[in-house]
Amino acid sequence: MQVAVVLYEWVTALDAVGPYEVLRSMPDTEIRTVAHAPGPVMTDSGVLTLGASHSFADTPAPDVVLVPGSSRGTQAAMNDPELLAWLVSTHETTRWTTSVCTGSLVLGAAGLLQGLPATTHWLAQDLLPLVGAVPSPDSRIVHSGKIATAAGVSAGIDLALWLAGELCGREVAEAIQLGIEYDPQPPFDAGHPSKASAAVLAATRERMTASALNL
Amino acid sequence: MQVAVVLYEWVTALDAVGPYEVLRSMPDTEIRTVAHAPGPVMTDSGVLTLGASHSFADTPAPDVVLVPGSSRGTQAAMNDPELLAWLVSTHETTRWTTSVCTGSLVLGAAGLLQGLPATTHWLAQDLLPLVGAVPSPDSRIVHSGKIATAAGVSAGIDLALWLAGELCGREVAEAIQLGIEYDPQPPFDAGHPSKASAAVLAATRERMTASALNL
Repeated sequence: MQVAVVLYEWVTALDAVGPYEVLRSMPDTEIRTVAHAPGPVMTDSGVLTLGASHSFADTPAPDVVLVPGSSRGTQAAMNDPELLAWLVSTHETTRWTTSVCTGSLVLGAAGLLQGLPATTHWLAQDLLPLVGAVPSPDSRIVHSGKIATAAGVSAGIDLALWLAGELCGREVAEAIQLGIEYDPQPPFDAGHPSKASAAVLAATRERMTASALNL
Repeated sequence: MQVAVVLYEWVTALDAVGPYEVLRSMPDTEIRTVAHAPGPVMTDSGVLTLGASHSFADTPAPDVVLVPGSSRGTQAAMNDPELLAWLVSTHETTRWTTSVCTGSLVLGAAGLLQGLPATTHWLAQDLLPLVGAVPSPDSRIVHSGKIATAAGVSAGIDLALWLAGELCGREVAEAIQLGIEYDPQPPFDAGHPSKASAAVLAATRERMTASALNL
C-alpha cells in the first residue's frame, strides 16, 4: 500500500505530520511526502521545512492521498493547476482521498467535494459551500464514499487512526495508537468553539483572522 | 522568548512537530529547530526530513529547550558529545528544559535528570534508572524544578499546551488549543498499556522491539 502525504508551500506542519506518523506505521505500507519536486517545503511558521520525498509526477497512483491544510497557503494551493490535476487523476484509483483542516478546500477546488458532506477548521466552515461541499461542523471526521475530511490541525491524528482501522482492521490501528501513546490528556478543555470561553474564542478569532484572509 | 526544538538523525517527527505547533503559537516567541548544522535531518521513517533552522552553536541561550525522542536514534543522541554539552550549557539559563518520549534519556545522558522523577515512552520506562532518573510511568507529564518530561510521541502536544499555560497563562494556552482544534476524539481507546488488550500490547511490543534495541 502506498500513502502520499501532499506538501505545498506554507502547509501547517502538524496537519501533515500527525497523520504521517500514524499511516507510516501501517504494515506493508510505503509512505511518501509528495510535492512539485523532491526537497524541502517551507511550512507556515516560516521556520520549519518538511522534506518532500517524491514529486507528483513520480507518484501517479497512490492508494491513499492526504491533503493537509495551511493557515496562509490554502488559497495558493487551491489555485495550483498541477496539484489540482494530480488530485483529480489520483482520485480515480485511490482507496481513500483525504484531507485535514483547510486541505478539504483544496480537494473542493479540484472538484472532488461536489454535493458531499465535509469538514475543515472551525474558522473555515463557511468556505466549504464555495467549493460545493456541505459543511458538517459538528463532526471531527466526515466521510462519504472514499473521501474523508477532518477538522482542524490535530484532528488529522484521529482521522488517520480511523483510516488505519478501515484499511488494516481495528487491532492494527489500536497497536499504532499504543505505539504513539495516543492517550490524550489535554490540560485544558478549549479545543472546540463550543467548549472555549467567549474571551478565548474572540482572541483566537482575532489572532487567526489576518492569516485566514490568506487561507 | 526563544524556543529551541532539537533535531537529530532518526528523530520521531511527531515528537518534535506536535510541541512545535503549539509553542510556535505563543505570542512574542521565536521558534527554532536546532541541530549540528542548519539543513534537513532524516526522521525515523527514513522518508521524511525535518529542516533545522539553526545550529547548536548559533543558539547558545534559548529560553525553552525541547528534546524529542526516536525509535532508532536515541542511543546515538545519548552518545553525541556536542549535543550533550549544548544541553548542559543551555540548561544553565533556560526557563524550561523539556523532552518528549525517549528524549528524556538524552536529557539523562547529559546528567540533567539525576535523582529526578521523569517519564518516557511506556516501552522505555525501565531505561530511566540507567541515567539516574526515577520512572513515573503513570504520569503523562512529569515536572520537577524547571525540567519537564512527557510520555511517548503524542504526549508532546499535552506537554506543550501545559508549558504554554505556565509561560503565557491559561487563556493564551486555551487559545492555542482552539487554534489547533485540539479536542481529541480517538476512534479507539488503546493509547496506554493499561487500556490496550493483551493482543494489542503483545503485537505492539513485538513490532517495536527490534527498533527499541537501537533506542
